Amino acid sequence: MEKWDGSEGTSAFHVPEWMIQFADQKQEFNKRPTKIGRRSLSRSISQSSTDSYSSAASYTDSSDDETSPRDKQQKNSKGSSDFCVKNIKQAEFGRREIEIAEQEMPALMALRKRAQGEKPLAGAKIVGCTHITAQTAVLMETLGALGAQCRWAACNIYSTLNEVAAALAESGFPVFAWKGESEDDFWWCIDRCVNVEGWQPNMILDDGGDLTHWIYKKYPNMFKKIKGIVEESVTGVHRLYQLSKAGKLCVPAMNVNDSVTKQKFDNLYCCRESILDGLKRTTDMMFGGKQVVVCGYGEVGKGCCAALKAMGSIVYVTEIDPICALQACMDGFRLVKLNEVIRQVDIVITCTGNKNVVTREHLDRMKNSCIVCNMGHSNTEIDVASLRTPELTWERVRSQVDHVIWPDGKRIVLLAEGRLLNLSCSTVPTFVLSITATTQALALIELYNAPEGRYKQDVYLLPKKMDEYVASLHLPTFDAHLTELTDEQAKYLGLNKNGPFKPNYYRY
Amino acid sequence: MEKWDGSEGTSAFHVPEWMIQFADQKQEFNKRPTKIGRRSLSRSISQSSTDSYSSAASYTDSSDDETSPRDKQQKNSKGSSDFCVKNIKQAEFGRREIEIAEQEMPALMALRKRAQGEKPLAGAKIVGCTHITAQTAVLMETLGALGAQCRWAACNIYSTLNEVAAALAESGFPVFAWKGESEDDFWWCIDRCVNVEGWQPNMILDDGGDLTHWIYKKYPNMFKKIKGIVEESVTGVHRLYQLSKAGKLCVPAMNVNDSVTKQKFDNLYCCRESILDGLKRTTDMMFGGKQVVVCGYGEVGKGCCAALKAMGSIVYVTEIDPICALQACMDGFRLVKLNEVIRQVDIVITCTGNKNVVTREHLDRMKNSCIVCNMGHSNTEIDVASLRTPELTWERVRSQVDHVIWPDGKRIVLLAEGRLLNLSCSTVPTFVLSITATTQALALIELYNAPEGRYKQDVYLLPKKMDEYVASLHLPTFDAHLTELTDEQAKYLGLNKNGPFKPNYYRY
Amino acid sequence: MEKWDGSEGTSAFHVPEWMIQFADQKQEFNKRPTKIGRRSLSRSISQSSTDSYSSAASYTDSSDDETSPRDKQQKNSKGSSDFCVKNIKQAEFGRREIEIAEQEMPALMALRKRAQGEKPLAGAKIVGCTHITAQTAVLMETLGALGAQCRWAACNIYSTLNEVAAALAESGFPVFAWKGESEDDFWWCIDRCVNVEGWQPNMILDDGGDLTHWIYKKYPNMFKKIKGIVEESVTGVHRLYQLSKAGKLCVPAMNVNDSVTKQKFDNLYCCRESILDGLKRTTDMMFGGKQVVVCGYGEVGKGCCAALKAMGSIVYVTEIDPICALQACMDGFRLVKLNEVIRQVDIVITCTGNKNVVTREHLDRMKNSCIVCNMGHSNTEIDVASLRTPELTWERVRSQVDHVIWPDGKRIVLLAEGRLLNLSCSTVPTFVLSITATTQALALIELYNAPEGRYKQDVYLLPKKMDEYVASLHLPTFDAHLTELTDEQAKYLGLNKNGPFKPNYYRY
Amino acid sequence: MEKWDGSEGTSAFHVPEWMIQFADQKQEFNKRPTKIGRRSLSRSISQSSTDSYSSAASYTDSSDDETSPRDKQQKNSKGSSDFCVKNIKQAEFGRREIEIAEQEMPALMALRKRAQGEKPLAGAKIVGCTHITAQTAVLMETLGALGAQCRWAACNIYSTLNEVAAALAESGFPVFAWKGESEDDFWWCIDRCVNVEGWQPNMILDDGGDLTHWIYKKYPNMFKKIKGIVEESVTGVHRLYQLSKAGKLCVPAMNVNDSVTKQKFDNLYCCRESILDGLKRTTDMMFGGKQVVVCGYGEVGKGCCAALKAMGSIVYVTEIDPICALQACMDGFRLVKLNEVIRQVDIVITCTGNKNVVTREHLDRMKNSCIVCNMGHSNTEIDVASLRTPELTWERVRSQVDHVIWPDGKRIVLLAEGRLLNLSCSTVPTFVLSITATTQALALIELYNAPEGRYKQDVYLLPKKMDEYVASLHLPTFDAHLTELTDEQAKYLGLNKNGPFKPNYYRY
Repeated sequence: MEKWDGSEGTSAFHVPEWMIQFADQKQEFNKRPTKIGRRSLSRSISQSSTDSYSSAASYTDSSDDETSPRDKQQKNSKGSSDFCVKNIKQAEFGRREIEIAEQEMPALMALRKRAQGEKPLAGAKIVGCTHITAQTAVLMETLGALGAQCRWAACNIYSTLNEVAAALAESGFPVFAWKGESEDDFWWCIDRCVNVEGWQPNMILDDGGDLTHWIYKKYPNMFKKIKGIVEESVTGVHRLYQLSKAGKLCVPAMNVNDSVTKQKFDNLYCCRESILDGLKRTTDMMFGGKQVVVCGYGEVGKGCCAALKAMGSIVYVTEIDPICALQACMDGFRLVKLNEVIRQVDIVITCTGNKNVVTREHLDRMKNSCIVCNMGHSNTEIDVASLRTPELTWERVRSQVDHVIWPDGKRIVLLAEGRLLNLSCSTVPTFVLSITATTQALALIELYNAPEGRYKQDVYLLPKKMDEYVASLHLPTFDAHLTELTDEQAKYLGLNKNGPFKPNYYRY
Repeated sequence: MEKWDGSEGTSAFHVPEWMIQFADQKQEFNKRPTKIGRRSLSRSISQSSTDSYSSAASYTDSSDDETSPRDKQQKNSKGSSDFCVKNIKQAEFGRREIEIAEQEMPALMALRKRAQGEKPLAGAKIVGCTHITAQTAVLMETLGALGAQCRWAACNIYSTLNEVAAALAESGFPVFAWKGESEDDFWWCIDRCVNVEGWQPNMILDDGGDLTHWIYKKYPNMFKKIKGIVEESVTGVHRLYQLSKAGKLCVPAMNVNDSVTKQKFDNLYCCRESILDGLKRTTDMMFGGKQVVVCGYGEVGKGCCAALKAMGSIVYVTEIDPICALQACMDGFRLVKLNEVIRQVDIVITCTGNKNVVTREHLDRMKNSCIVCNMGHSNTEIDVASLRTPELTWERVRSQVDHVIWPDGKRIVLLAEGRLLNLSCSTVPTFVLSITATTQALALIELYNAPEGRYKQDVYLLPKKMDEYVASLHLPTFDAHLTELTDEQAKYLGLNKNGPFKPNYYRY
Repeated sequence: MEKWDGSEGTSAFHVPEWMIQFADQKQEFNKRPTKIGRRSLSRSISQSSTDSYSSAASYTDSSDDETSPRDKQQKNSKGSSDFCVKNIKQAEFGRREIEIAEQEMPALMALRKRAQGEKPLAGAKIVGCTHITAQTAVLMETLGALGAQCRWAACNIYSTLNEVAAALAESGFPVFAWKGESEDDFWWCIDRCVNVEGWQPNMILDDGGDLTHWIYKKYPNMFKKIKGIVEESVTGVHRLYQLSKAGKLCVPAMNVNDSVTKQKFDNLYCCRESILDGLKRTTDMMFGGKQVVVCGYGEVGKGCCAALKAMGSIVYVTEIDPICALQACMDGFRLVKLNEVIRQVDIVITCTGNKNVVTREHLDRMKNSCIVCNMGHSNTEIDVASLRTPELTWERVRSQVDHVIWPDGKRIVLLAEGRLLNLSCSTVPTFVLSITATTQALALIELYNAPEGRYKQDVYLLPKKMDEYVASLHLPTFDAHLTELTDEQAKYLGLNKNGPFKPNYYRY
Repeated sequence: MEKWDGSEGTSAFHVPEWMIQFADQKQEFNKRPTKIGRRSLSRSISQSSTDSYSSAASYTDSSDDETSPRDKQQKNSKGSSDFCVKNIKQAEFGRREIEIAEQEMPALMALRKRAQGEKPLAGAKIVGCTHITAQTAVLMETLGALGAQCRWAACNIYSTLNEVAAALAESGFPVFAWKGESEDDFWWCIDRCVNVEGWQPNMILDDGGDLTHWIYKKYPNMFKKIKGIVEESVTGVHRLYQLSKAGKLCVPAMNVNDSVTKQKFDNLYCCRESILDGLKRTTDMMFGGKQVVVCGYGEVGKGCCAALKAMGSIVYVTEIDPICALQACMDGFRLVKLNEVIRQVDIVITCTGNKNVVTREHLDRMKNSCIVCNMGHSNTEIDVASLRTPELTWERVRSQVDHVIWPDGKRIVLLAEGRLLNLSCSTVPTFVLSITATTQALALIELYNAPEGRYKQDVYLLPKKMDEYVASLHLPTFDAHLTELTDEQAKYLGLNKNGPFKPNYYRY
């Protein structure tokens, strides 16, 4: 099989994992033709998927139903069978979940209202591949209300909420997704979204890049009609930049991952809360007085450090970047090398995006009962593989909590086997998902309606004005009252009264 | 007189004041040929100038000496008279001040050491126009140690520390500056730096743009030999962007004002401390339980809010930008319009960069004893002029503190007459000045040594790697230990082990 | 049945609930002869009980075993049958739980070591009535190691961990307790501890006062040999003060509830963490930007406020006590009446110890999705009964989470049906339990060994020196290094080098 | 001369300094019959005195007037000469200062209003000995408005504001005080307040105990008519407890030093602000990232630690008391011995009340530029005497700032020569003084009006209800709205609706 982006990853930033995996994949693609399970990089959406995986998916009991959805004949109440879900009869339960989510996604609901007259997505044919949750359903139905036709598959074989998928199918959305797809199912579902007689997509909404990949590989001609791609995951965005560098990106793409609101909410603010939640739910530990080392002082690390300091922990920070390091100093954290504090800390938290930040050597030197977890990226930061040796005993003491026991009796408490703590062991508020979903909707509208020439075959950040608009739609949640510039002030500042209010390089 | 940049300010951001002033100036330039006193925009350096104004300038008594330095015949101990300062005999006192400053500017001292062998500024002829303080002296002598020849004037007629100027002159630096220059003196001093027989500058270090302006106006041919301009003030940078837009910038310019470390230190971290200091020194107020409204939630507003919240004040925020507004919400501040809280607050602080944020109407509605001050920009934010009406009585109760008294007896406590509180009423740590000075030095080195073609006739931000280098030079102050990437990690991340570590759009 | 303490509660502080309940009880005592379920006032121990109730008790499956333990014939491996537990065969599992708890209760383990030589409780015959959890087991076995003989019953019909009870029975402790006792069982178990041939207790360790009550009622003569009572619950302590006032307390009693370490840990520090945990686990809400009103600014309220403020919530406080109110002001919280903010807040938290703090009228005025919960005391603070009216619909959306729905569709999110949130919906760290258990052990030692006359027939606080000792035993957990006074300093301060270090009225 | 309290200090807590000084004094009393300069223990009042010393006292120029006030003939405008102040003509200036203070002492002004009808101090003849400042004047005039006659002397030879004393004299208050009294003057002034023909005091308001001492020594019979003593300083209270222990206290005394509001405001909240203020004003240091060790975690230490942590410093704590140590741990501070961190910290702050906490050995090991200061007590905490050795050079670099220079060039920055930083280098808000003054007024009212027998010849704390009343009078400053108990709630809690609301042992 041919390489789909043709690039040699050179100066990749922060998401190089994919490159390596992609390299592996080239050899193995025929054997294991899916990258399933390697993604889940979008902190928020993936979160909900995990969450649903562990709990919500058991909304209704369908354990007795072993038939593959692909083998079932199902129709919704209007007689359509253009979908493939676990059980169309679960629609009612799913609808209730969607209604609850609607209450906490005021921005999308506001978009629906404002678009009642004009339909900014009239004529849009959107093919989507995301986690399928109640929040995504609110997004999808908003896109519909704005005039779009949608077809949808899941971007993760585990994360689909069957009841929500059923509710969408019942409402007439061609959804092809269920919890527990095989790899073959995964690609079959994507193909069913794309390969339709008499219907050709003109917009792509992707999370992870698999849908985009599939079209590149199978239906490259389809891109002639496609107006743009909206991609929200780190991995997917990285792939797009690779394509762009290689000169192979043939439509404009919008990187919604790096918009300000998404970055700050998914990282700083969300992690500030989820680090506490994740640690409490797994270990019931007391934060007060505990010594913690946080590896990495990016947005995620900043959130973790702020929360733990506020709860009375003593926090040390490690960094490779001198600017972030100086920020850590000014924020009141001792900047150390991991070796210097590894013997004394009660908790080690990785937030680097790097690999092997915590090595076996570090693990060997930790004190008894030290808790080790990863808030950063994928499952590479802690060298968990190094713990799979005969002399160490693993003891599963709770869901997501392992004691790894040294011959001398020392125990390390490893959370989520080194995978992302906040994906595995805490939940994400709908409010955060709302920001991401609104950003996606606006990105689709922008790309679909952009005049010829505004966007070339490149990867773009959401225009600042739209980023500001997403933010403004979420202010009512806080009963927050924005001040308007007077004409005189706007003139003085040389600004349009409606924004954008900052230069592009502004750092917030 | 002709307009020197030829541009019509259109989309100016955050520094439009200058445009307006420039407009005024066009008519008045012949009458009032200097923009003196209108600048002082660099938060840190200007700070020191004010500081010195109020106290340090009285180091040694020279009040009996009314002769203009221009009329004096002075020689330093080596017989040179290529300088013009208040009193060369004050050199010893100034030298002591410089030595104290050296102790707290480790980064510059480290630069001197590293450059003992190679002289990266060998052959550089730098003409500078900045505040002349002990910290600037450390910078200047560092430039000298790196191989440069320097000539220097003051960028502000009040901010020169005469003793420091004397010490520099004694050491052989051609310095033309004294405290209390007339406007004519101001331009004369600048001219003496530039218009020298047998010496032509090839680098400009400017703070406010007056030096650059002068050369543009008087000696435009000089730019043929000039390799670049380093400008640190908001105003000066704005002028450069205007020139660039108008196609009239004929050398590369480095905007050091917007480098990460300078922004964060001069704004967020510095204001976090100086808002408390400024309020205490002027009013001796207790922060606990006080209701405060902070107008603007940029870096300055963020710093003010964080400090006051930490000290037990109840803080409200106003914003025009929905993104900053959403940050304020997530950080735990009620976002309001000024009108909504103006009757109840004990303190009003402006941090917007805007004009007339606090109007007479607001002032009329404030409660008795309300404190009003400006941390943002220039003196435009509070409409102080509106208080100069017959029915209101002004009472000066302390230096920088006025009571404005309404007919019914209500008093407003106005600080620094609406000018910047932190320039007027608090000090700035040498550590902050050290960061700025180091950035300037590195910018000069970069521009001077850049290979042909790296920089065009445009305005540049400091390369990220240099920004990181400035940060790293300041880490030893905190005994901070940076972690180094392993080869494997650097490869995994696709990064050079020595940085830069982040993409340019990274927000920190 | 006669009233057992003969007093009329007059100036009761903070635990008046009991008086009222006791009044009710007088009429109903014959019908419902036990106060079971009304207690659970000790924040920490009760916590563990609830916890175990919901999860831990399902350690091992014994659901098939419906036989009452009272009807079973069981022997431990040494042949003793002086106990009554659910299933002696679960001992091994319980032992493992105890061992895990031992690791986190270093103070008790240290006590065991120090007492290996001397046995400060040699000869002590302690009858106890507490929650029976792994942590209590560590306490009980420590008392044994110190020389005491113990007999034990449960103070709550639901809170016993059957496996732990089995482990204790297997080790030779006469334990009479199982999860799911009837009221008759409850008193039978207590009686089996007390009414033993050839064994008479000389010390009482009580939690809630039922054991003490039983002995007063049934075996008043037993008090002749009893050296003292140690009581840890608010309710039990209140009962003792009532007895004392009425002149009916015939032995010294130690109030360990009000020792400094217990107060601060069980309240301020513990609630600081559990409010976040309880809200997250039940609602997955985001704290940032949320408006919260906390009713009451005692230790519990202080803890809740500090945590929520730190997480970015905007917190309002209500208070009746002007001193606490002034503290709230100085700590940066707006002091309001509940009515003033009830329409705008997202969360209402009660921490008052009072009743009907949140009334139906308040509930009627709350906005949609407002969360209401109780961190304070018992289940009286929110008038939940007022919500049991036909026009309101209750919907159980999760365990411990009800939506109460108004006719117009407004939903209130009621947590734990108004019972204590931190007992129902969060966990308590073993570290906190360790402090309480250590205090109990030291109180027993003190009362048992006190010379004749040190304690009269009254209620005492733990001597400050012992409070300090408990604290010192917990410092190693934090690797904390205490400074010792020099002889000169001790003399200067007029203090003994070993403490106590503060006067009794010191407030910490 | 005979010992005036007859006691041997045994278990003194926290103020033992006085005992030792008293011991010294016994030998030296004849030679140096005054304890002047040893007091200044009341954090707030003394603060104002120091403040005035350094600045305010120069309100009006009287440097040319070298005549002793005792030698002057002065009359106020009503013809009275029953006073002795520096210059009666300064009255007008002093009156303005008093009026400004009135605006910030709402509680006393409220007391005046409430007492317009009844005069709770009618018939009271109060002799007072306190710092004489604008705030004291507001107190004194309030006492007058409540019906009392007052005579007043200064408790400190330096702290009198001459202008304020003049204003009081002009208004008819017999005031005997001026700035710069000799020791003989000091006692002469006190005597002039007490030894008056036809006027005998029946109440004492003392600050430091000198007035009380004088009456004990010279006019012991006077106590027959005296209804009570109100004492606010640590030293004076200590003396009273000594007298009481020795059975020599012959009237009731009220210890207002230990009332809740005073303690929390003068210590925790006040120090939280003044530590930052004091450090900034003296050193202009930046707090962010600095390593600080705070010795002692009482109220003062807690305030310092909270403030510095909030400003981004890294704070270590030393403690001798394990309970306070455990609090430090839970609040997120590393508990260390001073030795362990002395080499690395940037600042050392003492808050212990102890002596020689920082020794020469510590000073020898500090790093270059380390700042050393005392927030705790008197001037004993840092062994400053050990620095007065020939090999060390002292350099005064600013007022209150000395560089002590080691032979190798290392400099220590010593603030206020080891005396209290917040007395010497920062100010205290009038709001804090208001709380103390209100407490004093209420204590006088209580003692004066107490029915026979309520108070015996002992030292009392202010009744909690009055403490609560003081707090309630200060709530309007914060626009704080107290909640009132309903009848039902009051009954439920067993509380009076008007308080007191807490048991005496409540810790706040």
